[in-house]
Amino acid sequence: MLWGGRFSKDPKKEILEFNSGENIELDEQLVLYDILGNVAHVKMLSEQKIISNAEADEIVAALLRIKKDFESGKFKLKKELEDVHMNIESAVTAITPAGKKMHTARSRNDQVILDTRLYLRDKIIEIGEASVQLQKSFVELSKKDSVFVAYTHTRVAQPQTVSYWCDSYVQSFSRDLERLKNLYKRINQNPLGACACTGTPWPINRKRTAELLGFELVQDNALDVVSCRWEFEAELISVLSVLMTKLSRISEELIWYSEKQMIEIGDEFCTGSSIMPNKKNADILEIVRGRTGRVYGNLMSVLASTKGLISGYNSDSQETKKPLMESVWIVNGSLLVVAAVVKSLGFNSKIIEEELENGYAQATELADLLAMKGLPFREAHKISGKLVKEFISKKKKLSEMKLVDLQKFTKIKLSESELKKAVSLERERLRVKIDSTEIEKREKELKSETERIKQVWKRLIE
Amino acid sequence: MLWGGRFSKDPKKEILEFNSGENIELDEQLVLYDILGNVAHVKMLSEQKIISNAEADEIVAALLRIKKDFESGKFKLKKELEDVHMNIESAVTAITPAGKKMHTARSRNDQVILDTRLYLRDKIIEIGEASVQLQKSFVELSKKDSVFVAYTHTRVAQPQTVSYWCDSYVQSFSRDLERLKNLYKRINQNPLGACACTGTPWPINRKRTAELLGFELVQDNALDVVSCRWEFEAELISVLSVLMTKLSRISEELIWYSEKQMIEIGDEFCTGSSIMPNKKNADILEIVRGRTGRVYGNLMSVLASTKGLISGYNSDSQETKKPLMESVWIVNGSLLVVAAVVKSLGFNSKIIEEELENGYAQATELADLLAMKGLPFREAHKISGKLVKEFISKKKKLSEMKLVDLQKFTKIKLSESELKKAVSLERERLRVKIDSTEIEKREKELKSETERIKQVWKRLIE
Amino acid sequence: MLWGGRFSKDPKKEILEFNSGENIELDEQLVLYDILGNVAHVKMLSEQKIISNAEADEIVAALLRIKKDFESGKFKLKKELEDVHMNIESAVTAITPAGKKMHTARSRNDQVILDTRLYLRDKIIEIGEASVQLQKSFVELSKKDSVFVAYTHTRVAQPQTVSYWCDSYVQSFSRDLERLKNLYKRINQNPLGACACTGTPWPINRKRTAELLGFELVQDNALDVVSCRWEFEAELISVLSVLMTKLSRISEELIWYSEKQMIEIGDEFCTGSSIMPNKKNADILEIVRGRTGRVYGNLMSVLASTKGLISGYNSDSQETKKPLMESVWIVNGSLLVVAAVVKSLGFNSKIIEEELENGYAQATELADLLAMKGLPFREAHKISGKLVKEFISKKKKLSEMKLVDLQKFTKIKLSESELKKAVSLERERLRVKIDSTEIEKREKELKSETERIKQVWKRLIE
Amino acid sequence: MLWGGRFSKDPKKEILEFNSGENIELDEQLVLYDILGNVAHVKMLSEQKIISNAEADEIVAALLRIKKDFESGKFKLKKELEDVHMNIESAVTAITPAGKKMHTARSRNDQVILDTRLYLRDKIIEIGEASVQLQKSFVELSKKDSVFVAYTHTRVAQPQTVSYWCDSYVQSFSRDLERLKNLYKRINQNPLGACACTGTPWPINRKRTAELLGFELVQDNALDVVSCRWEFEAELISVLSVLMTKLSRISEELIWYSEKQMIEIGDEFCTGSSIMPNKKNADILEIVRGRTGRVYGNLMSVLASTKGLISGYNSDSQETKKPLMESVWIVNGSLLVVAAVVKSLGFNSKIIEEELENGYAQATELADLLAMKGLPFREAHKISGKLVKEFISKKKKLSEMKLVDLQKFTKIKLSESELKKAVSLERERLRVKIDSTEIEKREKELKSETERIKQVWKRLIE
Repeated sequence: MLWGGRFSKDPKKEILEFNSGENIELDEQLVLYDILGNVAHVKMLSEQKIISNAEADEIVAALLRIKKDFESGKFKLKKELEDVHMNIESAVTAITPAGKKMHTARSRNDQVILDTRLYLRDKIIEIGEASVQLQKSFVELSKKDSVFVAYTHTRVAQPQTVSYWCDSYVQSFSRDLERLKNLYKRINQNPLGACACTGTPWPINRKRTAELLGFELVQDNALDVVSCRWEFEAELISVLSVLMTKLSRISEELIWYSEKQMIEIGDEFCTGSSIMPNKKNADILEIVRGRTGRVYGNLMSVLASTKGLISGYNSDSQETKKPLMESVWIVNGSLLVVAAVVKSLGFNSKIIEEELENGYAQATELADLLAMKGLPFREAHKISGKLVKEFISKKKKLSEMKLVDLQKFTKIKLSESELKKAVSLERERLRVKIDSTEIEKREKELKSETERIKQVWKRLIE
Repeated sequence: MLWGGRFSKDPKKEILEFNSGENIELDEQLVLYDILGNVAHVKMLSEQKIISNAEADEIVAALLRIKKDFESGKFKLKKELEDVHMNIESAVTAITPAGKKMHTARSRNDQVILDTRLYLRDKIIEIGEASVQLQKSFVELSKKDSVFVAYTHTRVAQPQTVSYWCDSYVQSFSRDLERLKNLYKRINQNPLGACACTGTPWPINRKRTAELLGFELVQDNALDVVSCRWEFEAELISVLSVLMTKLSRISEELIWYSEKQMIEIGDEFCTGSSIMPNKKNADILEIVRGRTGRVYGNLMSVLASTKGLISGYNSDSQETKKPLMESVWIVNGSLLVVAAVVKSLGFNSKIIEEELENGYAQATELADLLAMKGLPFREAHKISGKLVKEFISKKKKLSEMKLVDLQKFTKIKLSESELKKAVSLERERLRVKIDSTEIEKREKELKSETERIKQVWKRLIE
Repeated sequence: MLWGGRFSKDPKKEILEFNSGENIELDEQLVLYDILGNVAHVKMLSEQKIISNAEADEIVAALLRIKKDFESGKFKLKKELEDVHMNIESAVTAITPAGKKMHTARSRNDQVILDTRLYLRDKIIEIGEASVQLQKSFVELSKKDSVFVAYTHTRVAQPQTVSYWCDSYVQSFSRDLERLKNLYKRINQNPLGACACTGTPWPINRKRTAELLGFELVQDNALDVVSCRWEFEAELISVLSVLMTKLSRISEELIWYSEKQMIEIGDEFCTGSSIMPNKKNADILEIVRGRTGRVYGNLMSVLASTKGLISGYNSDSQETKKPLMESVWIVNGSLLVVAAVVKSLGFNSKIIEEELENGYAQATELADLLAMKGLPFREAHKISGKLVKEFISKKKKLSEMKLVDLQKFTKIKLSESELKKAVSLERERLRVKIDSTEIEKREKELKSETERIKQVWKRLIE
Repeated sequence: MLWGGRFSKDPKKEILEFNSGENIELDEQLVLYDILGNVAHVKMLSEQKIISNAEADEIVAALLRIKKDFESGKFKLKKELEDVHMNIESAVTAITPAGKKMHTARSRNDQVILDTRLYLRDKIIEIGEASVQLQKSFVELSKKDSVFVAYTHTRVAQPQTVSYWCDSYVQSFSRDLERLKNLYKRINQNPLGACACTGTPWPINRKRTAELLGFELVQDNALDVVSCRWEFEAELISVLSVLMTKLSRISEELIWYSEKQMIEIGDEFCTGSSIMPNKKNADILEIVRGRTGRVYGNLMSVLASTKGLISGYNSDSQETKKPLMESVWIVNGSLLVVAAVVKSLGFNSKIIEEELENGYAQATELADLLAMKGLPFREAHKISGKLVKEFISKKKKLSEMKLVDLQKFTKIKLSESELKKAVSLERERLRVKIDSTEIEKREKELKSETERIKQVWKRLIE
């Protein structure tokens, strides 16, 4: 117990388990980041003459050995050592006594924030890339262009096209990518050097660790640093909640559209029933829709866990690690799954057209036509409504409408071909070729940032 | 893939992982319950002549072998088989071809609800027992009776006693036990026989499986059965959210009271700092307080995942398993931890008394005394307020008040000893001996229910 | 400012507005309850000789005058007086100087809990009654019995009946009524006499006020009383969240079933579009579904607002009043709206039958039949799956199946009429006459409790 | 009923009340924005020759008259007309028959999004300005610089300064301002022209309405426009949840620091007790802390209400208006209240110093000093821990430490003055002059944006 100096009794075993059992499992995901941060810290310490070059070299060598052992499964975290930081420090110290100096001018408070940010940097890029994949799936799908249904109030509203529907999602996810980018910038700041909460009297160089670790800026105020861990977690899970809501809505759409057989989802994404031989369930989309609720729950956890705390580090924030990592896992997986499902979609034009006709989806275009011919819109709207009512009672399709049907309700002048165009299901103006400029730009940005981060790793620990 | 009859392609590997990877881990906790349910189902099937006695015997023998293998770590769930039900059925079938008949007149839809209820029955009892432990800790602590502070608005309000404070929690947790009991009754109903969603044409006997499994009633409507899984999960996590809120509040109290050194928490429940040698942190209570937020988040998950679904089973409900099991784990652990901490508490009367004096905690008793002597309460209240103001400015303690101080503000008659009693910090009427009748009653009930459940197991699979 | 004795400056106006502006509006709903509680308190004070009979009479007379003025719109709450308690006390004092004594042996802390409980008692009964109305709507609807669809995974699963579907909701809401009843019992306890947080030295009689106000028990520990306001609010909103989730799910079902034209919702519950003349939107059900989220949000508010607080009253709990009252309003309205919509439903058997045939809904019954004839269930299941596949490719309905179709896959013996019964859409066993005993029992209980409460009012202030 | 063409019965009264009663009250806040949007739309229609100049002039004149009537309280929204859009359109039509044309090439679906964005633009600026006010309060407060306590784990950690603590909040709120700015950019896009969900065949000019209304861009895809209302609401309430969490934490700090009498909050922000004359409650901060939970709840509402919906407008989104507007109200008020309280704070150095000494807050600096003199940090840490233990048992202050005390534990060389500096409570490096450049920049930006928006109003409707 490295902090045991002041204590007379050892914490009880069960307490340790309750305290650290889950945490130490989650910390597996931070091992490499912790090592990376240690190397940068130690390099800076030696450059600043706080420790000797020889000590620094020994510590770095020990850290690299631990990295190898971890990658080969030999180095395992022990919960008696509480967390990843203590585990690694104590492993280094077992290799070289210089290890006792590596915690100079540092605290676990700034260290955990460092590890979390290094982890989040990678994860935000990953999620960004998966979002781009999803956009590209929609672009690809949009090429199977055909008539489709636009709903409002879960009622047939107007005819649209597959490409327009795809475009709506491409544009929508661009905003999620923007949010991720905004957040990335806020996260990409160096917390190291904040120490416990007020910095340190040691002559450290925070700009140097920032540079070594590829941070854009130094986060200046130490108390702010150690008090703000939840803030980036909450912001990320908020951003992910918005993104997941969209995946949930897409799932809801696909589940119902396939139930109505307007679309077909490839067999490889469906499951059957152990009892009902007729079933082909869009299981995977139900899972995505269901997991959305968990991301919301995680957001609530982070906020509720934080709101009553005074500034400075509090252990309550250990409890946001699970919600954070779980949300990242859920969103990453869901994006890839939905991207794959979207690519697999087929459209059944005949059923789509029936749905449109049964919903009298051309009524608005008809009203607009009447208005263009001179009726005030409100009157045109009423006449179109009456026509729908009549066609329902006569069980006729709007696309079969002739001028003679119209003339019962209005004297307005228009040609048979103008009417035909309005009541057809085709909407030329909604057949779009999606502009991929934005997607390509984002993809390039993400690749170049990935490359930049790789260089950081290469320079420090490869 | 047992449900593969209708399909032409196999689901992709990654999809299976995303779909079932986590679920299969959680299902480890359901293995024994699934076996228990299988035995009861198969017994009933043979009693009803739906399968032969010989087939039933073979299946039960296979199930008992799997149970042993599971307990010795040899039987492991495979995610390719999706879930615990398919894993066990396929293991039975590998032992005996009769296994192909065990799913007769059943569906995974009623099976998963059965497993969940059997699991919840046990867990509710466990949580009930831990709650009783906590109550008993408070009873024990109340015996170290002494002066204590009652706060309102996080301000010293009035003197109270340790025993009165303990009693407030004992009474409070009685309500949580009541809620658990109400819920237990609702959960303890047989879902088996609901099958996929409309029951079955087979001549099954639902009362018999209820009897075998120790359920009080049969839940009648099959569609209701398969649509209500979330309902008991949401109710339990609600009940646990209320309970955890109390643990969080106790934690908050203990963290601050110990910060103020009015109470002392045993070293064995505290941790130190890796950088600040002076720290003694009530880490474990911060964890409890922080985990409370996670239980809220889990509640939100279950509700949000469910609200948009039509009736019948939907895979979204797979996603409530994790929030449910995590909440149970958190609450169980937190109760035991807080129970242990409470028992370890010591009180520092000197500091408590200082806190009371600095807060002029006797002012209300003084006002009451003046009112009892004949002043309208509102005037008594004003005079007491003025006295406080004067004592603050003179830096005097209220317990030092003499009649002469009072007479500056009122002519009311009272004796020096009456005044003395009112301004003292002792409150005889708040020194209580906690009534443990309720606690003992609950404990007995829980024990007897545990015993009853044990008998169910014994009769079926031991 | 009644509590101004200790202060040198007046709180700023804007602060008062921010603090009390919304609260005072909500307090309108508590005026009558506050008066009722005052009368009971004052009666007890005089019986205990704490105030004189004459004083009590004057106060009660003043309270009755204020009640009349409130009912006629003349008495209005002023926010400068902070809350309903101070408003009424100061109005009484303006009428009679005896008013200065009415706050004897009481605090706003126990008073606000008293008012809230009296309010909640009424509201729980109201919500109970509305739930019974909804059950009765389902009973009535069940009489229009016909073939209906049971879904799982939002896919056609099996044929069911209208009456069975109705019965599933009747049984489901019985549990909500049970929860309300459990909670009612916990709420129906007297908090009065807890005062600020430690009771009072006055010789009050808490059993007497309990009796006067119709409470079943006295809630004993004063600190528990003032610390637990959130607990009943959280429990109620939890119970309401579960209930609303069901209303949301019914809404989702009705929105989609009517979109598919399987059911028809009366015009009087739908709205049109300002631009699309073809639309008939189930607006009202969308509102119910949307408001469900608000009830969840309110639950989250109450929990999050409470978790970090130490015991005793804290002003944070003022902020749970809005979520509480809003939830009550939403649930009451939603129940009545859904009850009305349910009664108005019509069923379109032709479309329902098409849906069942398109979903090959008889496949399970067919598999069961094969299994009953001797095939192991798993094999029966596979054969039924292959038949579905073949019928899909041949575009045939399962109800048209003949023995000859079957014989391609199995040699099993069965008669043409047995097969016909299995593949028909009728399910005699699911045509149920709903048992209303439970509903009538609840209705009677609710009526008798309403009557009991009325008597309390009559005895005290009429 | 403008959309009544297709219907045979009128919606029932109570349904209208449940549906629109609350909504119409909230719409009061949108009246001016709706008028503004109408003017821009009508101007564009006439420029595009869709309506005549004369018609446009009549409609605009009618709109300006309604604006005046609204501002003087004469124009009131009626719930029979459902919402603000229908109310204004029907009032215009009552003035001029040209009103029947104003809804040409538009739907309430794009209109409500337009109104919401115009409203949000203003509100984001207001909240931004209030945040800057709060930052300035901290800057001002920082000038009363003195010794202060930095806590971790709610335990005294290290000495800090008032200015450093203030700086931590100034830097923290800069990020909230950044988030608001990021969001503002996303919101400031023109939705008008999306119509119901697929745009319109009319030759409208969306860039022109964007220009008239001061939007930076046009949001292109119509289906995306009508499906995304919730997205900006969720993002804003997320941003506000993070911001409120900080206000809640500040409140928690101030409530406890004032309870410990380290700080003093001006009387004008506190309230007393109706029963305890000694109380001075930081009521207003409890309210802020409590309202934080409501903002979380509102976030949960918006997410939960949305997750199960297919694309296109759904009435569920009406239900996000209340959570949105309530959150804006809460945050705006809370920022101003906290800004005022912060300015009023006084510091009690004597008590602060006692707190630091009782917490042995210099122990880390001491360990650092020992490490600087050559001890490995881990050993320095242990020695400092032992010294704390000894000083606790001897009831001595760390600031009284002499070299001789130290020498019991280590042979390390250092001077008496070096030791003195380390164990003193002063931390020169933490006395900071806050850099206000950022604040001033933000303030200027906000002012200039306010000015720009004012010009939009002036050009269109003044």
